[in-house]
Amino acid sequence: MIARTLPLVLLLCAAGATQAQPLVVNQAIAEAEVEAAQRAWCDALVGISTAYASGGQPAARALAEQVIDGAYGYGLGAVLFKPTLTVNPQTFRTTRAGALAYFVGGDPAFPKDSGFALKGWAQCRVANEAVFITGDSATTMGKVHLTQRGGQPTTVDKTWKFVKDDAGRLRIVVHHSSLEFAGS
Amino acid sequence: MIARTLPLVLLLCAAGATQAQPLVVNQAIAEAEVEAAQRAWCDALVGISTAYASGGQPAARALAEQVIDGAYGYGLGAVLFKPTLTVNPQTFRTTRAGALAYFVGGDPAFPKDSGFALKGWAQCRVANEAVFITGDSATTMGKVHLTQRGGQPTTVDKTWKFVKDDAGRLRIVVHHSSLEFAGS
Amino acid sequence: MIARTLPLVLLLCAAGATQAQPLVVNQAIAEAEVEAAQRAWCDALVGISTAYASGGQPAARALAEQVIDGAYGYGLGAVLFKPTLTVNPQTFRTTRAGALAYFVGGDPAFPKDSGFALKGWAQCRVANEAVFITGDSATTMGKVHLTQRGGQPTTVDKTWKFVKDDAGRLRIVVHHSSLEFAGS
Amino acid sequence: MIARTLPLVLLLCAAGATQAQPLVVNQAIAEAEVEAAQRAWCDALVGISTAYASGGQPAARALAEQVIDGAYGYGLGAVLFKPTLTVNPQTFRTTRAGALAYFVGGDPAFPKDSGFALKGWAQCRVANEAVFITGDSATTMGKVHLTQRGGQPTTVDKTWKFVKDDAGRLRIVVHHSSLEFAGS
Repeated sequence: MIARTLPLVLLLCAAGATQAQPLVVNQAIAEAEVEAAQRAWCDALVGISTAYASGGQPAARALAEQVIDGAYGYGLGAVLFKPTLTVNPQTFRTTRAGALAYFVGGDPAFPKDSGFALKGWAQCRVANEAVFITGDSATTMGKVHLTQRGGQPTTVDKTWKFVKDDAGRLRIVVHHSSLEFAGS
Repeated sequence: MIARTLPLVLLLCAAGATQAQPLVVNQAIAEAEVEAAQRAWCDALVGISTAYASGGQPAARALAEQVIDGAYGYGLGAVLFKPTLTVNPQTFRTTRAGALAYFVGGDPAFPKDSGFALKGWAQCRVANEAVFITGDSATTMGKVHLTQRGGQPTTVDKTWKFVKDDAGRLRIVVHHSSLEFAGS
Repeated sequence: MIARTLPLVLLLCAAGATQAQPLVVNQAIAEAEVEAAQRAWCDALVGISTAYASGGQPAARALAEQVIDGAYGYGLGAVLFKPTLTVNPQTFRTTRAGALAYFVGGDPAFPKDSGFALKGWAQCRVANEAVFITGDSATTMGKVHLTQRGGQPTTVDKTWKFVKDDAGRLRIVVHHSSLEFAGS
Repeated sequence: MIARTLPLVLLLCAAGATQAQPLVVNQAIAEAEVEAAQRAWCDALVGISTAYASGGQPAARALAEQVIDGAYGYGLGAVLFKPTLTVNPQTFRTTRAGALAYFVGGDPAFPKDSGFALKGWAQCRVANEAVFITGDSATTMGKVHLTQRGGQPTTVDKTWKFVKDDAGRLRIVVHHSSLEFAGS
């Protein structure tokens, strides 16, 4: 009897071994996705500068709108955005309009904005000090090294928090950028 | 002059290239961690049965306490636990005491519990239908195939939700187990 | 009068008391939202039964599609759904098609489904044993008491996990339902 | 027979109506908790300054250690901390030692740190621009207004991200602080 049962057991084991893989949905943010999103931000900044050089403010603005809508999370409620060069009383840009004005200027509602992305940026490189992935969000902190076409370098300290939207796309929901402290 | 500057630039580039890797903290739950936690649950069930066979209820109880404290999230607030074989009015076991009573019985506060883990389980195998990782939690749903020492098989439908505690250890915070529906 | 009021205004400004309230975005799931979503599920079940009685399977199916699309998270990747009455080898319904077949039948791909929502449900009441809100998700476990038009009662043990989609709507992403264990 | 059964049914219904409230575990971060944690940070800064005035660096250091261990999340993996006044190459303080050195100085491993919390802070007030609660985390962005004993005011732009640890205590896991941009 045992002898006759064994083949069945083996068969079942074999069947178990070839069992269909489970459906796996993994929404965790991977480090590579974070790095890609950071590179995309840098490329977008240089891209807007380039568009401005060739097509003027309208071209820069059209591209900036695309970048903001594709990379930021304004559609998710708000973005906590402290740009590098804003001043009181409009330091923070929690709305899409405020972000757009910062990047390309030309908005009378933000009269002190001359357009950060129009400053002739030719290179942009991220050097993360730390990347903290909680799984459903990822926060980075580090330096971003920028170079203008003339060769003038600028370094900023930058914190970004990314989340994934329902479509699985990383979106910036926190962005704090500041010039380096020069020392006392 | 440019010629003399270049080596320095190259040196800087090289220095940039060998820049220290960023600190990366990744708390996202990996699929392999989920599978390991599931295997550990199965091993623990068989282990308690084995402890019971050799050391009686006290040995089984001591091991079960260790397993509950190590694998469940009762310390995180509560566990939403619907064991396979509980009945009204004590169907749900949101407390550690209720889970312990279910696994090894012997608690007058849970008079209908005879000890699920004492039933001579010899084998336990998880067959996930689906694994859904949100990043900071992972939920699995599927079959668990159990075999008693005499060879009697049982299959249950099981949902587990795991989170990571502050120490990075996966903990079960939701556990719904039910016998298969036999059909009408 | 204005002259007399001004000093107070200045005082308030100095104190910061008249400072604009901060923008607050709160995506945390509230207990009341969970209860509303549960009641909506119950109402939908009764609604589909009612639609079936008056409009037949096409009416029931149309409503069921609406309910699934509005209340479940199939659009977010998958739903881990173990319905009460499904049998092997189609116990789990991780796809929208599988859920629809379970609720209203009529799908040759799920030949054993006769339509759970077509069974003349007249009442449905949720009695939560526990509600666990992590903030970005909420899991409930408890009894759901169902009554058919003839008065026949059924009670099931049910676990639901809800998340908020990008639009702020609660969606079921885990649903494990099982008949009560009758005892040995 | 039915007549005799009915009262029992009614009794059960009544019992159901007065059903015990479900166990509710709610880990969502509330706005009031965020505000309390921010006030606690301000109070701690002033407290360390006061301790320094009366007890010197050892007293300040002892209090700072307590504050860091109680309010920051260094025990959760790392803290992404960009203090207001740090300079290259030690801009970021992802370790407890780096945070302590920033606040009270005296650590030869951080030779440029003179102790930010020792600067005689007498007042500290948070003015949030935005608070974004995801449920399991909360991020704030806004101004922090500081006043030294002599009356000298300083305002910084500050981003904090808080999470709850397993014990339910809010902890700072991201902290980016910067002097206001003065304008070009």
